[in-house]
Amino acid sequence: MQPGADLAALIGHAAAGIDETVVLAVAQKIVSKAEGAIVDLRQIQPSPLARSWASEWNKDPRLIELILAQSRRIVKMDRGVIISETQRGFVCANAGVDESNVPGEDFATVLPADPDASAQRLRESVGCGAVIITDTFGRPWREGLVDVAIGVAGLDPLDDHRGRMDRHGRKLASTIIAVADQLAAAAGLVMKKDAGYPVVLIRGFEFQPAEAFARALLRKPEQDLFR
Amino acid sequence: MQPGADLAALIGHAAAGIDETVVLAVAQKIVSKAEGAIVDLRQIQPSPLARSWASEWNKDPRLIELILAQSRRIVKMDRGVIISETQRGFVCANAGVDESNVPGEDFATVLPADPDASAQRLRESVGCGAVIITDTFGRPWREGLVDVAIGVAGLDPLDDHRGRMDRHGRKLASTIIAVADQLAAAAGLVMKKDAGYPVVLIRGFEFQPAEAFARALLRKPEQDLFR
Repeated sequence: MQPGADLAALIGHAAAGIDETVVLAVAQKIVSKAEGAIVDLRQIQPSPLARSWASEWNKDPRLIELILAQSRRIVKMDRGVIISETQRGFVCANAGVDESNVPGEDFATVLPADPDASAQRLRESVGCGAVIITDTFGRPWREGLVDVAIGVAGLDPLDDHRGRMDRHGRKLASTIIAVADQLAAAAGLVMKKDAGYPVVLIRGFEFQPAEAFARALLRKPEQDLFR
Repeated sequence: MQPGADLAALIGHAAAGIDETVVLAVAQKIVSKAEGAIVDLRQIQPSPLARSWASEWNKDPRLIELILAQSRRIVKMDRGVIISETQRGFVCANAGVDESNVPGEDFATVLPADPDASAQRLRESVGCGAVIITDTFGRPWREGLVDVAIGVAGLDPLDDHRGRMDRHGRKLASTIIAVADQLAAAAGLVMKKDAGYPVVLIRGFEFQPAEAFARALLRKPEQDLFR
């Protein structure tokens, strides 16, 4: 996958029978590569903070500087781990900066500049019902990573059950399901990290068509109990 | 679903062709009901804390007392929301206490006493490859709920890619995938809250058979950056 590659055309060639009922899950890494969201670490001047952290935890100071630059807020920075809020509001390790599956020692990928826009472009070009751009995030309190949606086009990422009744006629109080994240997790089972399946077709899921965005999945600061 | 019901027999009757390749995802609510993990709120004496919180936020003080009793640590208690660590170490809203889909005004379900043991019993009785007991949890920073695994039998809940190589021959640094949570999320797409599909059959997923438990998904306090 080279910068400038026509990802939509590649998907169209690889998969038959894509129509409006299909949800396409696309791994962040392949989108970043196609969009040229790759940084040459040799061009980075590490700041004093990046140098001191890198030296303390045996990291590449250029990579730390890139992580800091991709962040708008550091959530936790402890024991060699940086959890930050990215410029677009995602809270994740290393601000989405990643060296794996990138050729060469001196390059790292960053998150797509606007994953919702990337998803929308892919949806239009491929002609599917919805697109989810996925990335693999850690969570507090639980071990292991899960895939979540960082870009969405064509479906409502949140399925709001409030006001609906449960099976005993009692109103469901606070049930809003993060459908886009559940789809991302399901796709993650198929993608696997080392197998290199960066695109997953999801058929048969009755999604709620909508002009919506993954940023609806980001909790607003004033509703965030964990700030 | 009545207390004492034979959930395994009901699943066996409802689904044909269950064998060692099948992963069964079972909603916590139905397991709790079958195991009688239902509490009669009329028998609860609210503590002063429960009464004061309930009065401030217009809640049922008996329900708050039950939530406190199911907790071993309060993680956040703010703006009417209680996030706690349950007696078994799950961090979630209301310690897993839930009034929805329970008949009657005066009853609530609690989490199964030992969800890993519940999963193991179901696995043996149904004769499937693996069982995951799922519950719907919120997350910090992200809107909406996703299903996660609170009980596991027969599969490794964590798929550890560390030491494996990426497609460019570089070692994957810290990639441990929470497979059981991704399976729970995939099943959650099918279960839906108001549809009442409490059991989902997953076929074709090549899981790692193991004598393992959902408690492997709980991050140890000393590795938890969010304590």
